[in-house]
Amino acid sequence: MATELPSYEHFNVTFPQEYVAHIETNRPKKMNAYFEPMWLELRKIVDTLSTHPSVRSIIFTGSGPAFTAGLDVKAASQGLLSPDGSKTDPARTAFQLRRHVADFQDCVSALERCEKPIIIILHGISYGLAIDLASAADVRICSADAKMCVKEVDIGLAADVGTLSRLGKVVGAFGWVKEVCMTARVFGAEEAAKVGFVNRVFADKEAAIKGGLEVAGLMAKKSPVAVQGTKELLNWSRDHNVQDGLRYTGVWNSAALQTSDIQRALLSGLEKRTPTFEKL
Amino acid sequence: MATELPSYEHFNVTFPQEYVAHIETNRPKKMNAYFEPMWLELRKIVDTLSTHPSVRSIIFTGSGPAFTAGLDVKAASQGLLSPDGSKTDPARTAFQLRRHVADFQDCVSALERCEKPIIIILHGISYGLAIDLASAADVRICSADAKMCVKEVDIGLAADVGTLSRLGKVVGAFGWVKEVCMTARVFGAEEAAKVGFVNRVFADKEAAIKGGLEVAGLMAKKSPVAVQGTKELLNWSRDHNVQDGLRYTGVWNSAALQTSDIQRALLSGLEKRTPTFEKL
Amino acid sequence: MATELPSYEHFNVTFPQEYVAHIETNRPKKMNAYFEPMWLELRKIVDTLSTHPSVRSIIFTGSGPAFTAGLDVKAASQGLLSPDGSKTDPARTAFQLRRHVADFQDCVSALERCEKPIIIILHGISYGLAIDLASAADVRICSADAKMCVKEVDIGLAADVGTLSRLGKVVGAFGWVKEVCMTARVFGAEEAAKVGFVNRVFADKEAAIKGGLEVAGLMAKKSPVAVQGTKELLNWSRDHNVQDGLRYTGVWNSAALQTSDIQRALLSGLEKRTPTFEKL
Amino acid sequence: MATELPSYEHFNVTFPQEYVAHIETNRPKKMNAYFEPMWLELRKIVDTLSTHPSVRSIIFTGSGPAFTAGLDVKAASQGLLSPDGSKTDPARTAFQLRRHVADFQDCVSALERCEKPIIIILHGISYGLAIDLASAADVRICSADAKMCVKEVDIGLAADVGTLSRLGKVVGAFGWVKEVCMTARVFGAEEAAKVGFVNRVFADKEAAIKGGLEVAGLMAKKSPVAVQGTKELLNWSRDHNVQDGLRYTGVWNSAALQTSDIQRALLSGLEKRTPTFEKL
Amino acid sequence: MATELPSYEHFNVTFPQEYVAHIETNRPKKMNAYFEPMWLELRKIVDTLSTHPSVRSIIFTGSGPAFTAGLDVKAASQGLLSPDGSKTDPARTAFQLRRHVADFQDCVSALERCEKPIIIILHGISYGLAIDLASAADVRICSADAKMCVKEVDIGLAADVGTLSRLGKVVGAFGWVKEVCMTARVFGAEEAAKVGFVNRVFADKEAAIKGGLEVAGLMAKKSPVAVQGTKELLNWSRDHNVQDGLRYTGVWNSAALQTSDIQRALLSGLEKRTPTFEKL
Amino acid sequence: MATELPSYEHFNVTFPQEYVAHIETNRPKKMNAYFEPMWLELRKIVDTLSTHPSVRSIIFTGSGPAFTAGLDVKAASQGLLSPDGSKTDPARTAFQLRRHVADFQDCVSALERCEKPIIIILHGISYGLAIDLASAADVRICSADAKMCVKEVDIGLAADVGTLSRLGKVVGAFGWVKEVCMTARVFGAEEAAKVGFVNRVFADKEAAIKGGLEVAGLMAKKSPVAVQGTKELLNWSRDHNVQDGLRYTGVWNSAALQTSDIQRALLSGLEKRTPTFEKL
Repeated sequence: MATELPSYEHFNVTFPQEYVAHIETNRPKKMNAYFEPMWLELRKIVDTLSTHPSVRSIIFTGSGPAFTAGLDVKAASQGLLSPDGSKTDPARTAFQLRRHVADFQDCVSALERCEKPIIIILHGISYGLAIDLASAADVRICSADAKMCVKEVDIGLAADVGTLSRLGKVVGAFGWVKEVCMTARVFGAEEAAKVGFVNRVFADKEAAIKGGLEVAGLMAKKSPVAVQGTKELLNWSRDHNVQDGLRYTGVWNSAALQTSDIQRALLSGLEKRTPTFEKL
Repeated sequence: MATELPSYEHFNVTFPQEYVAHIETNRPKKMNAYFEPMWLELRKIVDTLSTHPSVRSIIFTGSGPAFTAGLDVKAASQGLLSPDGSKTDPARTAFQLRRHVADFQDCVSALERCEKPIIIILHGISYGLAIDLASAADVRICSADAKMCVKEVDIGLAADVGTLSRLGKVVGAFGWVKEVCMTARVFGAEEAAKVGFVNRVFADKEAAIKGGLEVAGLMAKKSPVAVQGTKELLNWSRDHNVQDGLRYTGVWNSAALQTSDIQRALLSGLEKRTPTFEKL
Repeated sequence: MATELPSYEHFNVTFPQEYVAHIETNRPKKMNAYFEPMWLELRKIVDTLSTHPSVRSIIFTGSGPAFTAGLDVKAASQGLLSPDGSKTDPARTAFQLRRHVADFQDCVSALERCEKPIIIILHGISYGLAIDLASAADVRICSADAKMCVKEVDIGLAADVGTLSRLGKVVGAFGWVKEVCMTARVFGAEEAAKVGFVNRVFADKEAAIKGGLEVAGLMAKKSPVAVQGTKELLNWSRDHNVQDGLRYTGVWNSAALQTSDIQRALLSGLEKRTPTFEKL
Repeated sequence: MATELPSYEHFNVTFPQEYVAHIETNRPKKMNAYFEPMWLELRKIVDTLSTHPSVRSIIFTGSGPAFTAGLDVKAASQGLLSPDGSKTDPARTAFQLRRHVADFQDCVSALERCEKPIIIILHGISYGLAIDLASAADVRICSADAKMCVKEVDIGLAADVGTLSRLGKVVGAFGWVKEVCMTARVFGAEEAAKVGFVNRVFADKEAAIKGGLEVAGLMAKKSPVAVQGTKELLNWSRDHNVQDGLRYTGVWNSAALQTSDIQRALLSGLEKRTPTFEKL
Repeated sequence: MATELPSYEHFNVTFPQEYVAHIETNRPKKMNAYFEPMWLELRKIVDTLSTHPSVRSIIFTGSGPAFTAGLDVKAASQGLLSPDGSKTDPARTAFQLRRHVADFQDCVSALERCEKPIIIILHGISYGLAIDLASAADVRICSADAKMCVKEVDIGLAADVGTLSRLGKVVGAFGWVKEVCMTARVFGAEEAAKVGFVNRVFADKEAAIKGGLEVAGLMAKKSPVAVQGTKELLNWSRDHNVQDGLRYTGVWNSAALQTSDIQRALLSGLEKRTPTFEKL
Repeated sequence: MATELPSYEHFNVTFPQEYVAHIETNRPKKMNAYFEPMWLELRKIVDTLSTHPSVRSIIFTGSGPAFTAGLDVKAASQGLLSPDGSKTDPARTAFQLRRHVADFQDCVSALERCEKPIIIILHGISYGLAIDLASAADVRICSADAKMCVKEVDIGLAADVGTLSRLGKVVGAFGWVKEVCMTARVFGAEEAAKVGFVNRVFADKEAAIKGGLEVAGLMAKKSPVAVQGTKELLNWSRDHNVQDGLRYTGVWNSAALQTSDIQRALLSGLEKRTPTFEKL
């Protein structure tokens, strides 16, 4: 299937298992620091995989030891963070910044709206944008050497591409969220596991990828109608009250329960074999 | 008081302590697997206890080693999961499924809307519907042998009677919620305690029931006006922003603070004795 | 700067570090139990510090061993909890109670709406109102001897000045929240840390204050535009869905990103020195 | 089909046209004033028609000249409005009132949740409960002699079974809504039409019924999948923002668009004949 | 009662009828144009009347022919609209503007949160702030000579103290709202009545005041528990979905229905006399 | 400026006045019926104009007598409305339909998210999609010959690209909305004006275009910071409660009030000349 996809400039996209895609940020010399063309390309990749029938789950890593050092501050300081307010009035600058931030946010949100589950694997330096991306993914795991940080206040800004909107919804301890976001202190794998930011810690990056593939593989073996519906319903329910969650679930399943996957799954269960499901 | 209640077909309802009711699913030969008449009867029981003046808290268990194996798949595959789409068009089938799911959801929601707190005790096999029910209860405890699982994707469907709408609201670590819901992997008591799904783990079912009764007993000894108001206000606040939570609380308490329970509680406190409260 | 502030009757307000304020409840003989003039004064203090340009973060403690025993029940039983329903009809009493509760709630909410982060340090007896205040603060830490309790049901009422609306939003394990709110049982430092209610436990009050000052100091050294924006955006996002969180963030940052703090922070980073920022 | 339904005590239910039901309140000697058994029976009727495959739209009128004089105050003053607060404390009375009001509200809400559109025809005296019911219906029309009134403040209470929650959502001019709700002044047909409370005014009750049947008949001739989906989506959208409205619509229609009604409707359109649709 | 209130600098507050207060903006020489001390004083007045037991409804007019020409632009251009961005960075200016706007908004919102209904009477020039105030009032009436205008875009800004948040909620025709807000064109009494912005038009200011007093008088004669509850419930329902509206109503009325006003109103009704009600 | 834009296949885009764009659907031989490439192209055009600095307002019409006959049913019946359910299971078909509808909705929503105000001019046949588009525009005007219809139920489906989510938010009379959506009856210009669906009716298409250009011209002459902010704040407020509306407005204006447009507008006002504003 790899041949079906175009090749990408800043990312490697491979298919280590049937129905499992692997996105790898590929700028190891710069610790995978992001500049604009990268997040634009990431959106394109994720949007493509979202409806690609041969993909049922995705893992996401960085090339080399660091997941990402975050925003390429040098590039940003010539662009986004350098609005050049001198030339125009602050209101017009604000319009441009707002559009720019909204587009950047949309690239990160691609992970959340992706119809397939995404397991993100943090390893080594995982700063700033790493947390935005991780919070938009579905499952977070990390290697023991991961160093994580909501870095933004250190460069004078409030994180604006997702961390502040999502971190409090993926970690229950809101006091911890506030502390790490307002101090920009680095936290490690153990702490991340303790507060529930990551699901699991592995000895090193290699083991973490293997662990991530296992989770991704498990998901890829189930009915895609069931798994993708589950992702959608969990995300919807996070953003709505219980009653709206239940109602939406009922409407969603009024179509989904008509899938033949249920009969296949039940039959396979009785016959003790692994079911196969049509593409979706 | 037991004599005041009718006897039920699929459940035992007893009163192990003053003001404490015990609901026990009673289909141990089938590992307490549920079919439709059971959830309809459960709703009837919970709705009755909800306004029963002799009940102030409730524990909920299963008869035998398993809490419940979940949906009785055999029964369901002849009913709910067998919409017989061939006979009619998918839109009409969808209307029927939606009504059916809504009614089933309503049975599970009975636990949440019950005015009295419900302590659910998971033990042994606690699959599928067990998690829906547990998420709708107020306090979850389990025995060390509990095996829990959001089973639905294994049979080709997204859980639709409450788990997906509530689990992310009772457990803070949303990545964990996503993982267990999209992999259907079994998790045990220790893990459940670590992520906060259960409040406490006991050595075995017997100890867990004893522990559950202690919690239930503590609640039953307090002012029912205070305890039932607390349940309502916590549930409301979960579904609303802080400002709406505070406002609703103020309106609620504008009546509740006029209770004589406050004077009774204060006086008993001074006199170092246990207060008694009028029925509610 | 201390001289710029008026002196207060029930609180000591000091400035242990540059840009860090310390609020101390000062009624140690009564275990810092609160009566109405105290919460009114607390609001005044916090509202003042909220926009005071010399304050960038705040720690909050109690004088003496107890943080607070909660409401001064004796005072309350002659006021708020003694609505004297006999003289008027319950509806009119309800109007008065509602106004009274709303005003009290507003005093507690002052901590949440304060533009600067507040680190609250629970020590010794920390009952009732202690939890309301702590839930409205940003970061909670405690000493090993802290004894915490959502005390309200013990005196016949549902907590109404913030705990029920906020505790479920700062602790992920909702079953734990329900248990402690409906049983009024005391919990200690270790349990509080385990469920994520407090960020950290220190050996004693003195160490906890030192720890709190460190966190406060870290925050005070960052750009105040960044830190205060972060607090606001985290609080907004807690109360809104992700999309509204992102949109609001973009609008907020369309002004905030025009700050010179970003250039200062970036430059200082390159030059390996600590940046200084204009007052805010 | 009439024979399929049980006969009712306080209402006449007839079928004046194919697929159109007519509910008539039948207590003309008391100007159709409602007491509790009546609203309980109304709920039963509407819930039955809601899923009855032979019903596609409903008109609702009163027997005799008055639609309804509202609550039977005499009956209510011995029940709902006589909480007998002397016997118990106000908090316990509040619990009972809340349950009672909730159940009454649910009876009125039956009109809104009914899957089929309801055209209500106000004629003659249409006070109090008339407005609650009318606001919960889908289309309101009236005869020229209709005298309407949000009567509740005249008897010392805020309308609590729907008018205050719905009237502002069916009439755009919120100032008018506030005026009629806070003055209890009577308004006539012309005013009701001008503000958009009723869709149309007819010369007399007979003409209004004929007009109502025409609207109901039009709806009954369309695809029931389309009409019932439209009611649901309009009600959902009223209560949600546009984005949630669109999303829910897309999910709903992902099943509904699979109906054969579309092919039938398109074909009939080409062949210039009236389509027929399977029951729903 | 007039003597009970302090006298005010920019407003006349009188009591033309029992239980009815009249607020009159008193800066006729400047067409009642507002500058900061005026809106701060207005808040004080309205907050006072809100809980004043001798007030049950309020009318609000301007002294002289104009209701208000809006913001005193000259004063504003030296204050609010002159942020002097040159001296500080735009982010810090934004903090100050935000606080300033929030405080100004709060002064206008005083009309909405006032527990008593407010009838605003627009006459002559009624520009800018006039519409903000009118949208926050409960009932709007006007004289035939009223010239109304959402003036803000004419001075380069989006209206920010209420019009944009409320006008679309008091007028149903959203296209009209958008047109008048984005063109700043003047509209007259007839148009205002046609779109439902005002409830009624009177020949001149004198007649409008008389008409306003009639509406206010009607409200003042009803049970204050009922009328004030009605205002609160209508405002709440405007901002919430129907279900939350109903639930809140039930909780509110669980206290309010215990009022003796109901018995008084019912008895008076039977005895054909005007009821009197205790103060509130 | 026209030369700066590419030419489009299905639309004419012209610039009849400075800062005013005119979009004209250009398929007059088919009564401007839409098929998929058309709505995709419309999105591209509107998204482009949204940030084009030379555009400050937009009018939208159809070429020839009809605005649009709606969906090109023939094309749709081979695509969207022909899901070919036979080949796959209904759940998979549902996934495809949902994606398809979501993309179509997004094309219509382009009008709403466009930063510039859009005045839509309905003329002649304006069916189905015409109402979806019109509801997403800001101001609706029409010619006297306009024939409007929410056509969808006539072809067996619930309108799903915007009408059901937006019509009830642009017209206050919800009963009228329900009637026209569930009967698919045609309504004319006079009725549309009476219920507030259109702002104004003109004698014929030519006059309507002239009238539309006048409104658009008025908007184009004001500060673009003010007008575009006003559109955004009105749309946000429609979807949020008043408090969130006010808060968002304050944050938005904390940047917008720093514009030089305010000084320009004030000065021009004093000097009685027309201000000019920088591009945005």
